[in-house]
Amino acid sequence: MNFLEKRILEEGTVEPGGIIKVDGFLNHKMDIGLLNEIGAEFGRLFADERINKILTVEASGIGIACIAAQYFKTDDGEFPPVVFAKKSQTLNLGADVYHAKVESYTHQNENIIRVSKKYLSPGDRCLILDDFLAAGNAVVGLCEIIKQAGAECAGVGICIEKAFQPGGKRLIELGIKLRSLAIIRLDENGGIYFIKR
Amino acid sequence: MNFLEKRILEEGTVEPGGIIKVDGFLNHKMDIGLLNEIGAEFGRLFADERINKILTVEASGIGIACIAAQYFKTDDGEFPPVVFAKKSQTLNLGADVYHAKVESYTHQNENIIRVSKKYLSPGDRCLILDDFLAAGNAVVGLCEIIKQAGAECAGVGICIEKAFQPGGKRLIELGIKLRSLAIIRLDENGGIYFIKR
Repeated sequence: MNFLEKRILEEGTVEPGGIIKVDGFLNHKMDIGLLNEIGAEFGRLFADERINKILTVEASGIGIACIAAQYFKTDDGEFPPVVFAKKSQTLNLGADVYHAKVESYTHQNENIIRVSKKYLSPGDRCLILDDFLAAGNAVVGLCEIIKQAGAECAGVGICIEKAFQPGGKRLIELGIKLRSLAIIRLDENGGIYFIKR
Repeated sequence: MNFLEKRILEEGTVEPGGIIKVDGFLNHKMDIGLLNEIGAEFGRLFADERINKILTVEASGIGIACIAAQYFKTDDGEFPPVVFAKKSQTLNLGADVYHAKVESYTHQNENIIRVSKKYLSPGDRCLILDDFLAAGNAVVGLCEIIKQAGAECAGVGICIEKAFQPGGKRLIELGIKLRSLAIIRLDENGGIYFIKR
C-alpha cells in the first residue's frame, strides 16, 4: 500500500452515492506535506514526458498542481506554469477562450470550463492533474481544450480514481497515459479497497 | 520596487473599471517560481506569528496559499495545512459549516463562503492569504468565519492591494496585521504606480 492509499484508509470515509470524502487532507483542508509526496510521485511518473505546462480545473486541483509543478523542470530549467480552467465567465477572463462542457458529479450541475487562448499553444506538452477521476468529464473537457489549442496531452495524473466509475476506461481508450495514485473499489459493505492497473 | 511590483509593471494591464489583469502569472496561468518568491516573502513577514493554519477562498488563492505554506512551520515542525473556503454547497462539504456572505467585485455576484466546522478550532492562529484585496469582502468574510470558530486571525497577506478601493482601510481599522506585497494606485491615464503603507 502506498502513502496515499494508507492515508485514505486512515482518514477517508464513504458517503451514500459512492462519494469518497477526503476533505481532511486533500480537497478542503489540504495537507501540504502529503501534497509534496503526491507531487514528487507525479514528477517520477511523468519524468520522461518533457512536460512544459500543467493543466487543471478549479478549485481543488489547483493546490495539487501548484505543488506538483515544483517536481518538474522545463527545457529552460523553470518550473512549468500551472494553468487552471475556470468554471465561470469572470470579468478577468476575457472573451478569447477555449471552452468545453463538463458535467460535475459531486456538484450535480453542468459547467463550461474555459482557458484563455493566450495560455495554451501548439507544441505545448500538457500534464493534466486532478484530485479525483470519476466519470472523467473534467479530464475529457481539458483534453478537448488542449486539442483546440493544437497542444498535446502528455499524460493525466490523478490522486484518487474511482474504479467503479467509467473515467479510467474512457481515458485509456482515448490512448492517454493515465497514472492514478490510488484506484478505489468498494466492497458490498461500502468498504474501500485498492486495485492496481 | 520589489519582484512583484516589477512583474506587474512588465506584464499586468488595467481594464475598464479598475480591473488589474495579472492572469499571465498570478491567477489563471500561475508562475510557480514567482509563487515561491511570494510565499517566501509571506513566510518572512509573518515569521513571528506562530501560524498553524492558512486560510483562503477558492479559487485563485489556493495555489498561493499552498506554495506559501511551505515557508511556515507549526510547533510540530509540519507545514501548516491550507483550508480553503468553498463558494458552493457541494455534496462533499456536509451541513456542519461556518459561513459568511461575500460580495464579489470581479464576478459581480454574491456568494456564501463555507468552511467545515471540523477544520477550524479555538486556539488556531490563522493566516489569511489571497491574490487580491479590493473591497475586502472576501477577507472580512474569512475573518467572520475565524471568529465563529473561536480562532484567531494572526494576519492577512495579500499579493496585490488596490489602494483605490476600501479593503485595506477596513482591515486596518479592524486591527488586523495586513501585509500587501504590491499596493496599487492608478494615475489619471490609468497607469499603475505603487505606494508604501
